[in-house]
Amino acid sequence: MKRTEYPVALRELIAQLRQMPGVGPRSAERIALWIVQARAGQPEAIAAAISQTRAAIHPCRQCGFFATAEVCEICADDSRVAGLLCVVEQATDILPLEKTSAFRGRYHSLGGRISPLDRVAPEDLRIAELVARVERDSPNEIIFALAADVEGEATTHYLVDLLKDYPVSLTRIAHGLPAGGGLESADELTLSRALQGRTKL
Amino acid sequence: MKRTEYPVALRELIAQLRQMPGVGPRSAERIALWIVQARAGQPEAIAAAISQTRAAIHPCRQCGFFATAEVCEICADDSRVAGLLCVVEQATDILPLEKTSAFRGRYHSLGGRISPLDRVAPEDLRIAELVARVERDSPNEIIFALAADVEGEATTHYLVDLLKDYPVSLTRIAHGLPAGGGLESADELTLSRALQGRTKL
Repeated sequence: MKRTEYPVALRELIAQLRQMPGVGPRSAERIALWIVQARAGQPEAIAAAISQTRAAIHPCRQCGFFATAEVCEICADDSRVAGLLCVVEQATDILPLEKTSAFRGRYHSLGGRISPLDRVAPEDLRIAELVARVERDSPNEIIFALAADVEGEATTHYLVDLLKDYPVSLTRIAHGLPAGGGLESADELTLSRALQGRTKL
Repeated sequence: MKRTEYPVALRELIAQLRQMPGVGPRSAERIALWIVQARAGQPEAIAAAISQTRAAIHPCRQCGFFATAEVCEICADDSRVAGLLCVVEQATDILPLEKTSAFRGRYHSLGGRISPLDRVAPEDLRIAELVARVERDSPNEIIFALAADVEGEATTHYLVDLLKDYPVSLTRIAHGLPAGGGLESADELTLSRALQGRTKL
């Protein structure tokens, strides 16, 4: 007697679902069984939403955020402070910053960070676009908001070096104690950066 | 300044993905962002797999397991022991039983269990089909493998009552200590059932 398995179509669906982030073999199986058994319309709507979103959403030509028009909602928003730019690694870094309501300028997503180990060179990022934007718009300030790790730091330094001769103020977000974090739970590097970045009271 | 959000298409995709079992708001967002940013072809393949599986897979006309033909692989398998039937609640209960290799007969999935609270009446289940199958095939034995809870028990009793006048042996799978389970971790109900179901040594 041969070992019974799910029909091929169902097994292929499970394999496809496993490509999604955070979906392991067990949850892929659970989702696939739901797809096979759900009431008419639900899974079809998901499939349609995937296809439609892929067709509708693309990176903003100017900043790299998610857009349905040529430029995104943020770049098209005239109430934004002109001449203030925040450089982030990924388009997904923009919404967390927006949620703070602490920044009212526009963004520039690099699409990654310089990482020789992952074979990401400066040419692979939207750096030429950043320089062109600086030359065209002459911003007053560029805030670097990259990750506080080795590659994020290296990318920031690379960009600062590239832009240092332009008449623009280059700053970066503070590194220090996270909100609610006590000293006993902070690592040495965080603490030493918090000391270096001390501000006058 | 209005609060920036993802474009509508992306938010709708997140809402759709949340319908899938085990996918909460955070993982729906993570999957949606992956879908928007993944390399060409991957999300499209998932959308196609969902649609294709919905079209290809349907319940086996005889037993209710997942099938691509009119009857499933198991019902079509001539090497199965004839006259031996195992009744389960869901099509998804069949594969775990198959994996044991301890059962060589065929199955009958009810598509649920009798549950007045969830408004599931006997007519909503594949019970008429089970009776018709018993009348047509005159099986020797029907093994009930429903859940060991109140509704599973009630459904088993209902079916036993319905089938008691047919010349068929009605049995059910044992309730007792799970493999590897010590007495100290077993609940009272499991222990009392294990005592009732004791077998001769």
